[in-house]
Amino acid sequence: MILEAIVLNVREGEAAGFEEAFEQAKAIVAASPGFEGLRLLRCIETSHRYLLLIEWATLDDHLIGFRGSAGFEEWRGLLHHFYEPAPLVEHFEPFVEVLGGD
Amino acid sequence: MILEAIVLNVREGEAAGFEEAFEQAKAIVAASPGFEGLRLLRCIETSHRYLLLIEWATLDDHLIGFRGSAGFEEWRGLLHHFYEPAPLVEHFEPFVEVLGGD
Repeated sequence: MILEAIVLNVREGEAAGFEEAFEQAKAIVAASPGFEGLRLLRCIETSHRYLLLIEWATLDDHLIGFRGSAGFEEWRGLLHHFYEPAPLVEHFEPFVEVLGGD
Repeated sequence: MILEAIVLNVREGEAAGFEEAFEQAKAIVAASPGFEGLRLLRCIETSHRYLLLIEWATLDDHLIGFRGSAGFEEWRGLLHHFYEPAPLVEHFEPFVEVLGGD
């Protein structure tokens, strides 16, 4: 599993529009081969900031499969105009995991 | 659930030492009340960079409970000297989740 992690800074005043567009866009990425799950989270300290975490089976499922697809153009069209500045996309591989046990 | 997310930039040449120290330090945070799990991941694009994701039951479990504990001083002592620059700690609340279904 490869985790794509992006901090998204949404333009002032456009958070509601972004959230609505994301609800529509999420099905596009979820239908892409190798997609293993996503979480979109809202930042507590900074309004209009979000963390997007997407799990892919392999790096190529994201960089070649999804980015080379027609769905990616639709995803971009729905979401990218909300971001200021353009986000840095990074990928991470799992190294340590500890489960909570209450 | 609140997700604490930190991008950790480890000093050049100290990644192995950091990884070893983290293996020791993880039990400290895992024993703190409200801890619900953690993942440490290695960045694929940038060596010496990691993403630390810690799930807490509440924000106060991190900011008051863990940071006010004796364990936190031990955690800091083990890990913080590896970071350059000092990391930005942010908290996120879940908004959208999509599970993969192959």
